[in-house]
Amino acid sequence: MSEGPHLTFDLDQPGISQGHLVVPKGADCEALSLSVFSLNKGAGPRLLITGGCHGNELEGPIVARRLVEWLPEAQTCGRIIIVSVLNPPAVQAFTRNTPIDGLNLNRVFPGRANGSVTERIADAISRLLLPMADTVFDLHSFGPTWDFPPSTTTHPIADQDLMAKTIKMAEAFKLPMTLVWDHPDTPGMFDISAHNQGKVFVCAELGGGTIGAENLAIYEAGVRNALIALGLIEGKAECPIFRQRKSSQTLQTRRPADELASPARGIFEPRCSMLDEVKQGDLIGILHPMDSSSAASTDIRLPSTSIVCGIRSGGYVEVNEWLALLARSLAH
Amino acid sequence: MSEGPHLTFDLDQPGISQGHLVVPKGADCEALSLSVFSLNKGAGPRLLITGGCHGNELEGPIVARRLVEWLPEAQTCGRIIIVSVLNPPAVQAFTRNTPIDGLNLNRVFPGRANGSVTERIADAISRLLLPMADTVFDLHSFGPTWDFPPSTTTHPIADQDLMAKTIKMAEAFKLPMTLVWDHPDTPGMFDISAHNQGKVFVCAELGGGTIGAENLAIYEAGVRNALIALGLIEGKAECPIFRQRKSSQTLQTRRPADELASPARGIFEPRCSMLDEVKQGDLIGILHPMDSSSAASTDIRLPSTSIVCGIRSGGYVEVNEWLALLARSLAH
Repeated sequence: MSEGPHLTFDLDQPGISQGHLVVPKGADCEALSLSVFSLNKGAGPRLLITGGCHGNELEGPIVARRLVEWLPEAQTCGRIIIVSVLNPPAVQAFTRNTPIDGLNLNRVFPGRANGSVTERIADAISRLLLPMADTVFDLHSFGPTWDFPPSTTTHPIADQDLMAKTIKMAEAFKLPMTLVWDHPDTPGMFDISAHNQGKVFVCAELGGGTIGAENLAIYEAGVRNALIALGLIEGKAECPIFRQRKSSQTLQTRRPADELASPARGIFEPRCSMLDEVKQGDLIGILHPMDSSSAASTDIRLPSTSIVCGIRSGGYVEVNEWLALLARSLAH
Repeated sequence: MSEGPHLTFDLDQPGISQGHLVVPKGADCEALSLSVFSLNKGAGPRLLITGGCHGNELEGPIVARRLVEWLPEAQTCGRIIIVSVLNPPAVQAFTRNTPIDGLNLNRVFPGRANGSVTERIADAISRLLLPMADTVFDLHSFGPTWDFPPSTTTHPIADQDLMAKTIKMAEAFKLPMTLVWDHPDTPGMFDISAHNQGKVFVCAELGGGTIGAENLAIYEAGVRNALIALGLIEGKAECPIFRQRKSSQTLQTRRPADELASPARGIFEPRCSMLDEVKQGDLIGILHPMDSSSAASTDIRLPSTSIVCGIRSGGYVEVNEWLALLARSLAH
């Protein structure tokens, strides 16, 4: 008899409890045990915090672990469930996708009980943890190949009431950017499953570049602000200081115009920084051919006046790879 | 008859000239053409600037290309040869080592004429370009997995006169750190070949993290400072501003005490930043096990009072991987 996904402990017990979410074995690997931390302080908001969906985005797992240290003292009501690493095989391999089946966990929700390991993880989360929460914070990051600010993001949601609640929750982090991102590749994403169950889902994209001590403090402050807004902890929310600025803005993108794709392969030299306001026709980067003796460089200019949400870190890019993601202020 | 490595143009012609260094074909691949830019303004210092030794360190190629734009106007005497990409196959693959033979170009100098492609590149550089210069600036970077300041480095050199000249040249960049690095893995490095020919060789480690517009400006300013010190261009050298600081210090490391290795595998959370001065016993990071429910985290504390040259970006590390590189002020 094959055992279904299950928890090794009773999530309903009051106070702190800790145990595992067991993802059953399949043809491709043995059962996995995901560490689950639960803080149950009775009536109030029910929040699920997840990290480590992609194995090379480790700001989330680190910030989630920090919460485990101070939340038991700070939380005043409600219930918080923390899964700091959703995808242990991917984190161990430090890869975006699960190395065992090559799948992207954030493209297989709600998962399949009899699927490959990534689908079984999604199935276990969807069936056993998602129903326990009204709000989800999923902690991602843009990774080292982009200059991208600490931010919260959501996709456009057809249900206008849920959209408004989601933007309000995302803004409560008070990170430098809140982004309504018209994303091209949504089937199977975790947020779609959550939206289908009527839940508020905020994806934190914890920036690009090096995961250093200063950035981690900003990310932690953002999550703390959101917990204050939910009424789960007491305190005063404050914009964290990021690159000498203490500000927060809400932006939106439109497909496909805001996805600036590379016209050629070559070495990309960024000439602006994230959150720069750039005018139509301004230079934002240069694409250099490998052989500078026989081919000229190509200036990359902005097709329309925009705010630069993120820009590729200097690197070798292929044709049609994104060089920048553009946006403008959200008309509330 | 097999053709040896050769230049497609006459490096001795006055003024600007541009062409290729041809690395002959071998059993493993066709001939490569490396773009070479030469500025010959007669008597004076003879400098070789190289970038793209490692294919995933692209600050060097970008800064080298910028020099090609403004040096023709600025250079007043002497000769500068620029090879912005030493290893085109590695840059195209965005990998440290050459994908064709798996070799690290900076471990095969002085190369072999009949070796694999990486050895043939080293041979062509060693025989045709290195003899044309008295000074070499080789532009590297620490890459995205470290928090590391823009810096110049040299290994300890037995010849005390050459060591003093090299440190003076490295300090002339006025970058935040000049490092005399007691490196464990020196055979076959480019600098050893250059030292054996009595040349001053400075390796610029252009920092860690995202390659963004601000950092590129700092790197370019560093190279400009060094060109002023050599007397190749006119101007006033100034420390570039990096993270609100405008300072420059010279440090040294000692093996193996200054290489802080990980005692276990896990998710590394950095708790300090590069160039922090940290006391013996202070916490500089935490190593988290994948399964926080059944295993405790490990505090990483400093074995002796030091300056942190560089610290690993948050990521998954294996046992004995370096977590930090420590140093102290150089006793001149």
